[in-house]
Amino acid sequence: MASLAARQLLKGRHVAVVGAGLVGAGWAIVFARAGLEVRVFDANPDTAAGVPDFIRVQLEQMQHHGLVDDAPAVLQRIRVSADLAHAVRGAGYVQESVLERVDVKLGLMRQLQELLDPDAVVGSSTSGIGSSKLTQGLDLATRVLVVHPVNPPHLVPVVELVPSPATGAAACDFAHALMLAVDQSPVRVNREIEGFVLNRLQGVLLREAWALVADGVATCEDIDKTVRDGLGWRWSFMGPFETIDLNAPGGVADYAARLGPLYQSIAASRSQDEQWPPELVGRVEAERRRYLSQDELGQRRDWRDRRLMAIAASRRSRKEDGKA
Amino acid sequence: MASLAARQLLKGRHVAVVGAGLVGAGWAIVFARAGLEVRVFDANPDTAAGVPDFIRVQLEQMQHHGLVDDAPAVLQRIRVSADLAHAVRGAGYVQESVLERVDVKLGLMRQLQELLDPDAVVGSSTSGIGSSKLTQGLDLATRVLVVHPVNPPHLVPVVELVPSPATGAAACDFAHALMLAVDQSPVRVNREIEGFVLNRLQGVLLREAWALVADGVATCEDIDKTVRDGLGWRWSFMGPFETIDLNAPGGVADYAARLGPLYQSIAASRSQDEQWPPELVGRVEAERRRYLSQDELGQRRDWRDRRLMAIAASRRSRKEDGKA
Repeated sequence: MASLAARQLLKGRHVAVVGAGLVGAGWAIVFARAGLEVRVFDANPDTAAGVPDFIRVQLEQMQHHGLVDDAPAVLQRIRVSADLAHAVRGAGYVQESVLERVDVKLGLMRQLQELLDPDAVVGSSTSGIGSSKLTQGLDLATRVLVVHPVNPPHLVPVVELVPSPATGAAACDFAHALMLAVDQSPVRVNREIEGFVLNRLQGVLLREAWALVADGVATCEDIDKTVRDGLGWRWSFMGPFETIDLNAPGGVADYAARLGPLYQSIAASRSQDEQWPPELVGRVEAERRRYLSQDELGQRRDWRDRRLMAIAASRRSRKEDGKA
Repeated sequence: MASLAARQLLKGRHVAVVGAGLVGAGWAIVFARAGLEVRVFDANPDTAAGVPDFIRVQLEQMQHHGLVDDAPAVLQRIRVSADLAHAVRGAGYVQESVLERVDVKLGLMRQLQELLDPDAVVGSSTSGIGSSKLTQGLDLATRVLVVHPVNPPHLVPVVELVPSPATGAAACDFAHALMLAVDQSPVRVNREIEGFVLNRLQGVLLREAWALVADGVATCEDIDKTVRDGLGWRWSFMGPFETIDLNAPGGVADYAARLGPLYQSIAASRSQDEQWPPELVGRVEAERRRYLSQDELGQRRDWRDRRLMAIAASRRSRKEDGKA
């Protein structure tokens, strides 16, 4: 079903992924998993050469978790192109995942303007640069928006769609429909704002967490425990609004009446300009290294990805059972 | 194992739960599940009378999810006492879960001071009142601390331990050991601070979420989606510090160097005194009611609890398999 809808949206054309680091490679899996043909290009030949192996390993693990049914077939839909023109010519959609620098991305957009079909849409994976900065002075601007995934995109479904003032409604609607068709979870961010929604939410929580460590209120391990054994359970299947909607007898307005003043008082207790000073960063780094040495970081990232796969698999089987 | 350790800590004595609303009843399950004898008292006879039935239903669902092995045996360890003295005399530990009002809790503490064994420890379930306010002028103060659960305590393991300046180290260590022995996840909050750790973290995220709705950046449904299909997945098994520790090649200090300035800039973009004005509360309430009518709130809470049970069950089986 998903694959038919995706192919129809693209009118039979392929998807191009430009930039094949972790994010780009993850995107290639997302599109190919949904039955689309994918062409991948990376300006660095070594990166490009490593793509098929990296994706194969990911797909095998995903199949082990029940997240893809036929890993070799998915892999076969992903081709590495030797040059940009081969990757993007005739594509219905381009996912840009190159280096997070305005000059690099803007340079690519200029090339894409020359190479793309007149109705092809471009999504940028940028986590921090508004697409208006990436398309200044380009006619292509009407067909470019931010399509920001969480890393890795093939394991975590949420995607932020952020148009610039120049982006046309058709491009926004196309990107939204495409993300739904490839089984991602698109969120509309109505205007360019620093950090978009996801990193703003993460940012304010991090800020409070750092301040609590700085003030000696709790260790970073105990703060982590508060989230992973408490707060985070609810947030893994309900957002913050649904959480509070269910946490007062009369719903969210009732909650705001009961607890709004407490939360405002908490918020007001932090000044605006607190930093993460080097001494504090050093303390947190030292505490983390007691739990996980520098050498073990990579292994722990693999563990994280297996946990994410398990969550994705449990979501998938709930969906198939017709549960919300 | 857990039950032996818990019984040894209590020197064979029972646990008393005073106040038998949702929180108190949940606590009774926590202690009885670990093999402890529990006496429950509520000043309202109707509430007290409803306790066994409520707990029986909870335990049946927990058994269905593999969270208790022998629900009837657990239920049998919970007795409802007709008066406070019967509930607390001879108890090794009292979990106070009465109405969230200083006068009510302080009145109870005065009675407990008369009734308790000289070494019994008292934990308060308060989510917002520092225990120094609850024990002003009482000798009992050295043996009282906040032991704040997430609701419902029998499904979500995290517990915040917050001593007052008067609380003795022995009482803190006892409460910490007891919580571990009954399979909760204790977090040490080193001093009384508004909202403790959990509600401070929730509070800052909620504040940003409300502000994003107020500014028209996203709908509350899209903000919820950003968390439940993205951010919250990681936070359900890793805290915020471990998350960023794994999100930069060199760990948390590397992350702070790369992304600290962005997060500080996001934090600085919010003024301190933003409120949740009535008009905004009304808008959010109206949007939530489109997804879930007032009539459906109760049903959705049951759904939430089933999801939490599923998470707890998957944690339990990971633990039994020896996985972190």
